[in-house]
Amino acid sequence: MKKNSVSVGIIGFGTVGSGTAHILITSADVIRERTGFAVELKRIADLDVTRDRGVKLPAGMLTTDPAAVIDDPDIDIVIELMGGIHPAKEFMIRAIRNGKHVVTANKALLATEGNELFAEAERAGVEIGFEASVAGGIPIIKVLREGLIANRIIAVYGIINGTSNYIFTKMSDEKVEFSEALKEAQRLGYAEADPAFDIEGIDSAHKLTILASLAYGIPLSYNEVYKEGITRITAQDIAFAAELGYKVKLLAITKATNEGIEMRVHPTMVPNEYLISKVDGVFNAVYVQGDAVGATLYYGRGAGDMPTGSAVVADIIDIGRNVMCGSTRRIPGIPGFVKPGAAAKKIKKMDDVESMYYFRFSAFDEPGVLSRISGILGNYNISIASVIQKGRSIGGSVPVVVLAHRSREKDVLSALREIDALPVVSEKTLFIRVEDSKE
Amino acid sequence: MKKNSVSVGIIGFGTVGSGTAHILITSADVIRERTGFAVELKRIADLDVTRDRGVKLPAGMLTTDPAAVIDDPDIDIVIELMGGIHPAKEFMIRAIRNGKHVVTANKALLATEGNELFAEAERAGVEIGFEASVAGGIPIIKVLREGLIANRIIAVYGIINGTSNYIFTKMSDEKVEFSEALKEAQRLGYAEADPAFDIEGIDSAHKLTILASLAYGIPLSYNEVYKEGITRITAQDIAFAAELGYKVKLLAITKATNEGIEMRVHPTMVPNEYLISKVDGVFNAVYVQGDAVGATLYYGRGAGDMPTGSAVVADIIDIGRNVMCGSTRRIPGIPGFVKPGAAAKKIKKMDDVESMYYFRFSAFDEPGVLSRISGILGNYNISIASVIQKGRSIGGSVPVVVLAHRSREKDVLSALREIDALPVVSEKTLFIRVEDSKE
Repeated sequence: MKKNSVSVGIIGFGTVGSGTAHILITSADVIRERTGFAVELKRIADLDVTRDRGVKLPAGMLTTDPAAVIDDPDIDIVIELMGGIHPAKEFMIRAIRNGKHVVTANKALLATEGNELFAEAERAGVEIGFEASVAGGIPIIKVLREGLIANRIIAVYGIINGTSNYIFTKMSDEKVEFSEALKEAQRLGYAEADPAFDIEGIDSAHKLTILASLAYGIPLSYNEVYKEGITRITAQDIAFAAELGYKVKLLAITKATNEGIEMRVHPTMVPNEYLISKVDGVFNAVYVQGDAVGATLYYGRGAGDMPTGSAVVADIIDIGRNVMCGSTRRIPGIPGFVKPGAAAKKIKKMDDVESMYYFRFSAFDEPGVLSRISGILGNYNISIASVIQKGRSIGGSVPVVVLAHRSREKDVLSALREIDALPVVSEKTLFIRVEDSKE
Repeated sequence: MKKNSVSVGIIGFGTVGSGTAHILITSADVIRERTGFAVELKRIADLDVTRDRGVKLPAGMLTTDPAAVIDDPDIDIVIELMGGIHPAKEFMIRAIRNGKHVVTANKALLATEGNELFAEAERAGVEIGFEASVAGGIPIIKVLREGLIANRIIAVYGIINGTSNYIFTKMSDEKVEFSEALKEAQRLGYAEADPAFDIEGIDSAHKLTILASLAYGIPLSYNEVYKEGITRITAQDIAFAAELGYKVKLLAITKATNEGIEMRVHPTMVPNEYLISKVDGVFNAVYVQGDAVGATLYYGRGAGDMPTGSAVVADIIDIGRNVMCGSTRRIPGIPGFVKPGAAAKKIKKMDDVESMYYFRFSAFDEPGVLSRISGILGNYNISIASVIQKGRSIGGSVPVVVLAHRSREKDVLSALREIDALPVVSEKTLFIRVEDSKE
């Protein structure tokens, strides 16, 4: 008898779990109309089975026992939405070894333990769906694995942490400092009480790890991602950036270069003319440049119960279609390639990365300061594109802003070490990398 | 023996045909690394086998005989890139009846004859790939059929004709009139010598027909799409729109409403804050709003050999994967739904569409003109949001610009008929519909 439904169970009934359950229940008709089969939500496991999540569930669906999902022989797909590394990893492995497909939104787990998990899935002949792990509702995983498959990927630039983007947008629109913008983000529920994952670039780095594997067919390499948070950036820097024609965004960047693959997350200045500079608030966007397709951009909500649930359910249906027609593992998991390519798969060291740079020097207001700074920059082959020096302080320090042409990270760090040691320099120099295709 | 390659043949070696061949030849390694199988380009048929397209082909690949592609038993997938309705339709049907899958970029053919073609494909148990038919390299077909499948689609707004968007961008940036912008588009090769398909909204309507079928599971209904071109819009209107905080774009719109599905293509004013208003030049973008995912946007090049070739090759690989694992027709063709849904599938008449409106009245400079115009508007329940009236002519006519709150198309047309018959009105009133979620 031909199967005409797939059964799923959810582990983790938090924000995304509720959104997923909500969609599966209220859009069951839509799913059936479009696919010809039903997705049956059988069981939801969570430690808390009493809190009201605003989703009406049939009696007996909720359980505190994850084994009731993982070990149920009738469940085809286990949806892991509990987050964290342990015991999510162990649950996932057990489900895989039980021959179940897994769908997850857990970027931290995939980025750090994913190579092992994908190998387990390959051995067991099951799939791991992970559309929801990057950029919430934006189907960027599908775009990279299928939509743009004919392309050599030249670069991926992502605004993939809504909290940081909200903070920068708020700082830019309302001229407030980081701490105030963060407080507002926390008040609105966009940032956790411990916001480190978001504002230190860790969450973006997890997601970038996944994107880079798909783009370049490399194993998940979280430890090789350079990451730098947004906490150093001041409202003043955002204003100077605006004056120079740029917006400041926390970008996750992966690029293919002759010297290897770049993987880096840091505050970045992008020209006002770039569409990605207009992506504001908690929204996410991923810019993908392919050798055939050229510039493309994908925009939407990167978090939230329903947007992320939209991605989880898309994965369930994708796997469901494979179950229906016996084409499991139709598309390889991670790394994105079936066999390692001929292309260089070396990861480039951050020291060797080149870009334009924005510097804000804090110098005592004395004659000759700019000439000493620019002298040192020159010694390291860092050439100046423009300078902003304004106002005069009385005996205090003034900001000197310099935009430098394309330079090497290693040279920049060396030059700044020398400059910051000058007696006329009053504070550690603030720098922001600048992505501008004009250079 | 397990197959480890698919064979393809191309009919039509024009712009997109060359791009497709170029990708298949120069990225054969990438395709094999990512999928584990090879795509073998066997034959290309075109009437002209001598012109240099900049693609190096093995000897004997080019033929003037389409039957050498369509009837070759070794070819799995026929790529139809000749364009036009006949004989493309007949070739496609013959290929389908020969048991071959078809990939096409031919929106005109699909929009007008597609219901028959998709029925043929269903009968023959083959697939029609049509990613390249809408928005060039942007994988919008895959996004609607797969990425956002968990969503009830609320609305789709597309800038899906690069020529028109180039013309509006040029008129806006350089304050030139339509005819001059069109001439420049033709000079740059963005517009055909006969630009009617682009500037009359026909091309956008073809593409919208396809998007609406996928979004709402309705048969292709090109004849029910309302279409209006961009030729009436003047540089003055674009300047007034800017003054009111809007950009003018040729939008293809499909929406689900209680009174049925809207399908319409016309110049539209969109608020400056909307990301889609920033899509300039020949670029395309499709905004999709789903009930779960919320607002999303997809941006990229809507035409050109390589971007469109990127979409064609993605389809080839998608079908190739199905061939490899025996999962042909894993995803239904058009209409996008396996079975007609319970949702209302009625197409809404343009008369019943509601939106905000921009009017530019041309009136003789006499006292009481505005009161007579606004009186008639009021009689038809059209209420005024704002007015711009500037300058005075000496005895001549002056433009009076009115932005009206949400009104019904039918009422607007009736009111304009009365207004345009007034002796004080010197010219037919120009109106532009306004999409603004604030109303």
